[in-house]
Amino acid sequence: MWDVNVATGLSVAPVGDFLAGLKRTVGAAHVIRGVDDEAAPYRRDWTGQFSGSPIAVVKPKTTQEVAEVVKLCCDHGVSMVPTGGRTGLCGGGVPIGDGTSVLISLERMNSVRHLDQDGRSITVEAGVVLQTAQERARDRGLVFPLTFGAQGSAMIGGVLSTNAGGSNVVRYGTARELCIGIEAVLPNGSVINALTGLRKDNTGYDLRDLLIGAEGTLGIITAAVFKLFPEPKARTTGFLSLAALADAPRVLNVLQDRSGGGVEAFEYMPKAAVDVICRVFPKVRKPLEDAAQTGVFFEVTSPREDDAQSADGGGTRLESLVFSALEVLMEEGIVVDAMIAQSEQQRLDLWAMREAILEAITENGPAYHMDISLPLAAVAEFVATMDEAVSEMGFQPLTVGHLGDGNLHYALSAQPGRNWADLPLARAKQAAFALLAKLNGSFSAEHGIGQSKLDVMIDLKESSQLDAMRAIKTALDPSGLINPGKLIPVPRDP
Amino acid sequence: MWDVNVATGLSVAPVGDFLAGLKRTVGAAHVIRGVDDEAAPYRRDWTGQFSGSPIAVVKPKTTQEVAEVVKLCCDHGVSMVPTGGRTGLCGGGVPIGDGTSVLISLERMNSVRHLDQDGRSITVEAGVVLQTAQERARDRGLVFPLTFGAQGSAMIGGVLSTNAGGSNVVRYGTARELCIGIEAVLPNGSVINALTGLRKDNTGYDLRDLLIGAEGTLGIITAAVFKLFPEPKARTTGFLSLAALADAPRVLNVLQDRSGGGVEAFEYMPKAAVDVICRVFPKVRKPLEDAAQTGVFFEVTSPREDDAQSADGGGTRLESLVFSALEVLMEEGIVVDAMIAQSEQQRLDLWAMREAILEAITENGPAYHMDISLPLAAVAEFVATMDEAVSEMGFQPLTVGHLGDGNLHYALSAQPGRNWADLPLARAKQAAFALLAKLNGSFSAEHGIGQSKLDVMIDLKESSQLDAMRAIKTALDPSGLINPGKLIPVPRDP
Repeated sequence: MWDVNVATGLSVAPVGDFLAGLKRTVGAAHVIRGVDDEAAPYRRDWTGQFSGSPIAVVKPKTTQEVAEVVKLCCDHGVSMVPTGGRTGLCGGGVPIGDGTSVLISLERMNSVRHLDQDGRSITVEAGVVLQTAQERARDRGLVFPLTFGAQGSAMIGGVLSTNAGGSNVVRYGTARELCIGIEAVLPNGSVINALTGLRKDNTGYDLRDLLIGAEGTLGIITAAVFKLFPEPKARTTGFLSLAALADAPRVLNVLQDRSGGGVEAFEYMPKAAVDVICRVFPKVRKPLEDAAQTGVFFEVTSPREDDAQSADGGGTRLESLVFSALEVLMEEGIVVDAMIAQSEQQRLDLWAMREAILEAITENGPAYHMDISLPLAAVAEFVATMDEAVSEMGFQPLTVGHLGDGNLHYALSAQPGRNWADLPLARAKQAAFALLAKLNGSFSAEHGIGQSKLDVMIDLKESSQLDAMRAIKTALDPSGLINPGKLIPVPRDP
Repeated sequence: MWDVNVATGLSVAPVGDFLAGLKRTVGAAHVIRGVDDEAAPYRRDWTGQFSGSPIAVVKPKTTQEVAEVVKLCCDHGVSMVPTGGRTGLCGGGVPIGDGTSVLISLERMNSVRHLDQDGRSITVEAGVVLQTAQERARDRGLVFPLTFGAQGSAMIGGVLSTNAGGSNVVRYGTARELCIGIEAVLPNGSVINALTGLRKDNTGYDLRDLLIGAEGTLGIITAAVFKLFPEPKARTTGFLSLAALADAPRVLNVLQDRSGGGVEAFEYMPKAAVDVICRVFPKVRKPLEDAAQTGVFFEVTSPREDDAQSADGGGTRLESLVFSALEVLMEEGIVVDAMIAQSEQQRLDLWAMREAILEAITENGPAYHMDISLPLAAVAEFVATMDEAVSEMGFQPLTVGHLGDGNLHYALSAQPGRNWADLPLARAKQAAFALLAKLNGSFSAEHGIGQSKLDVMIDLKESSQLDAMRAIKTALDPSGLINPGKLIPVPRDP
C-alpha cells in the first residue's frame, strides 16, 4: 500500500520507492515530481478552471510501459490520471486535489504507426497531436477528417476519450464513428489489442466504444485506427439567411440530396453572434449586407473530379448543384438571401469568422457556455423558448452551433448595461436543462462531463443508466484508481 | 427462488405461481407452456442446429411488460432468453437445455413508433420485422438500408443484438453504425430510455453500443432509433473480372472516388462459386462469357438527381462515371473484363445470382461455412494461402463475401469424388484460424458468437478482453439469468 499522507500531500511524505519504480519503468528523465517547476503546465488545463498537483508526471513511451506504470500504481494504491493535450473543456485531464494522483502523460507515444493507403486507415498512438494525424493523411492524398479549434494541441487519446466532434461531424461522424480499432491498458494493467481496423467484427462486447467517451475512467487508450477519406476535389462555401430556424432541416436535406451527401459544415450563426464578432474584430465583414437574423454558414464538398469541372454557368459543377438547391429553397421562401464565396480568400474569411466566435464571446464579457444537442426538429423550439426566457432575465444569448448535428453552443452573456454578477444564472440553467429534458436533448453534446458537469449529470441522467455506469466502472476498476472524480457523479444521499 | 428440478425439466415440477405471474403480466393469451404444440416453432431456430425447450414462451406487448417479466424471472431465479425471428446463424435466440429458461419473444412489440421525415430517422420496436422497417421508410421516400437474406423474418431486436451487416455495409454501415438511440430493459428490470436519435451525446458510457452486439446477454433491447437515407436516384450494377484479388482495394477506391462514395455492393464471386450456382440453378447465366476467376459483383448508386440524367454517351451520368472508372482500371490491366446491367431485369438477375449462393452451396453437398473478416489488404493473401492449403486436404473452397468490408463467407465443400466425412475439417479450421490470427482478422465478422463459436472464441479472443467481458457481464447480470450459455465462453481449467 501507498503510505503518503493524502491530506498533506507529497511534500511531507516519503515517495522514494514508488518514484524509483516509475523511473525504472520509463527512465528517470521521463518522471517529473509534481512539485517541480517543470510540472507546472501539467497542473492545470487549457481553460484554467481546473487544476491539481500530481504526485508525479510520468511519460511512458510504449504500451508496455503504460501497462507497467498502471500495475505499479495499482500495487501502491495510487490513483492515475491519463492526460494528453489538456484542451478538453470539462477538466477530465487534470488531477482532482493535490498530491494524490500520478499524471500519466501519453505525449511520448507520438508515433504514426501505419498508414494503409489502399485500406484507407491510419494507426496512431495516443500522444499524436490531431493536426499531425491530419497532415500525415494529407501527405498521402487522404483526409483525417476530425477538425476543431484545439487541433494543434489536442492528442488522439483525449480526442477518443472525450469522443470529440467539431465542425464536420455532419459529413464524417464523431471520433467514435471514425475509429475502427483500439489498443488500451485496462485498470488492472492488462492490454487490449484490437487495432485491427476491421470494418466488421462481431466477437463479443464492444469494448472499443466503451472506452471511447469514457474520459479515461475505464482504462488508458494507447493507440487507435481511424478511417481515412479521399480529399475533396471541389468545395462550395457560403452563407445563408433563412426565413426561420425551423426550416434548417429542410435546407440541410436539399443541400445534401443535390450534392449526394456533401455537406461538410452547416453552422448556425445568428445575427447576435455575427454582431459580436464584428464588434470585437472590426476587420471582419458581415457576409450579407442585411444582417441575417437566422444565418447559416455552410460548406459543401465533393471527392468527385467531375464536380470540380466547369459547368455551363461558369463555376464548377458542384457550385451549380448548390445554386440549383438554393434556387429551390429561395422559391419556397425558405432561404431569403445567400452569398457564395467566389475565391479561396472569401472562403477562408468565412471560416475565420466562424472560428472567431469563441474568442469574440470571451472578449465581449462574462458568459456561460452550454454545449447541448437536440433532435434537429426540436432546435428551433429550444432556441425560441430559451431566447425569450433568458432575455427576460437580462441575458443576451449568443448562440452558434453545429446545426447539422443538432449541436448548439448556447452561450449566455449580459445584456448591455446589465451587471453579469446580478443575473440569475442558476435559474437560466435550470430553465435550459428542463427544456432539454422535455425535448429529448442532451446536456453535453461533444465536450463530455469531466469534473464540470457532474452536478448536472446526477440531476439529468436516468438513474438506471447511472447505476449501470457505476456497475461497469466497479467491475473494471474495483479500487477506483483510474481517473477518479471524473464522469461518474457520486450518488447523493437520499 | 424457483424450485423446478432443472435436471428433469418442467414436466415434473409445479410452475403454477410463476406461470400465473407471467399471465397476469402479459395476459394469459400471450403465455405458452414450453411443452405445448404451439411452442414448437420457438424450440428451434432457422438453422435447425440449435434447439431447446423453454419453460414457457412469453410475449410482452410493451417495454413495461418486458421489465415486469424480467423482474418476475429475477424473483424466481429463472433464466431468460430474448428472441425475435430466430434467423441468426449461431443459436443466440434459442434456449440451451430443456425446461430451464423462459423465452421472451419480442414479436408483439411490433410498432413503428415514429418516422421523423426531416430528421431522417425512424423509431421502431424490437419486434418489427426488418422488411417492415424498410417498407415504412420507402413509403416516405427514404431508405432503411440494412439488407440481408433473412430480412423478411429477422426482427430489429435480433438485428441489433447481433450487430447485423449484409450486402450494403460498405455504403451505410452495420446495424451499430445505423442505430442512433436505444431503449432496453437491463437484467435487473430497470429500463434505459435513450431513444433520443441525437447525433451527438457525450454524457457517460456508451451503453447503446454495449448492448448492440451483446446477443441479449446484457439486457433486452425493446426499441431503437435508426438513421434513414435519401433514396438513390440512379443505380449502375455490373460484374467485373479482375486480374488478381489483390487489386480489389484499388478497384473499390477508384469506383468510390469517381462516384463520390457511391459503392453500395462490392461482392466477391469467384469462378468456383459462380460455377456451383450455375450447376445447381441451370437457368442462371454466367454474367461474363469467360468465367471470371476473380469475379466481383458491384452496384453503385447515387442520391443525386443529376446522376440520373442522360450523359453524352447515352446512359445516365452515373453510368458514365462508372465507365470512366472502368476505363482507368482496364488501362491499368486490373479489370480484365466487365459487364454492366443494361436493364432492370439484368440487374435483378445479377442480384438473384448473388443471393442464390447459400442455397447453391447447401444443395451442392455438405459444407462448413466460415464468416470471417480481414483488413482489405490481407484478403488476397488469406484466400491464396487457404485455398492452396485446403485443396491439398481434399476440400473445394466455395467463397463469396462482402469484399468491400473485408468480410468473406469462406465455405469448405468436398472436392468431386471425395467423401466429406473423411476430410480433415478440424485441421482446415485450425489452419484458417491460425492464419486469421496472423493477419489480424476476425473469426466472426457479422454472424456473432451465440452458442456455435464459443469454442473458437476461447481459443482466439485475447484473455484480457474475455476477462473484461466477464467482469461487465457479472456487473450487470450478477445472477447470470439473461441468455446464459451464449457469447461468453466458460473459462477452461488451466
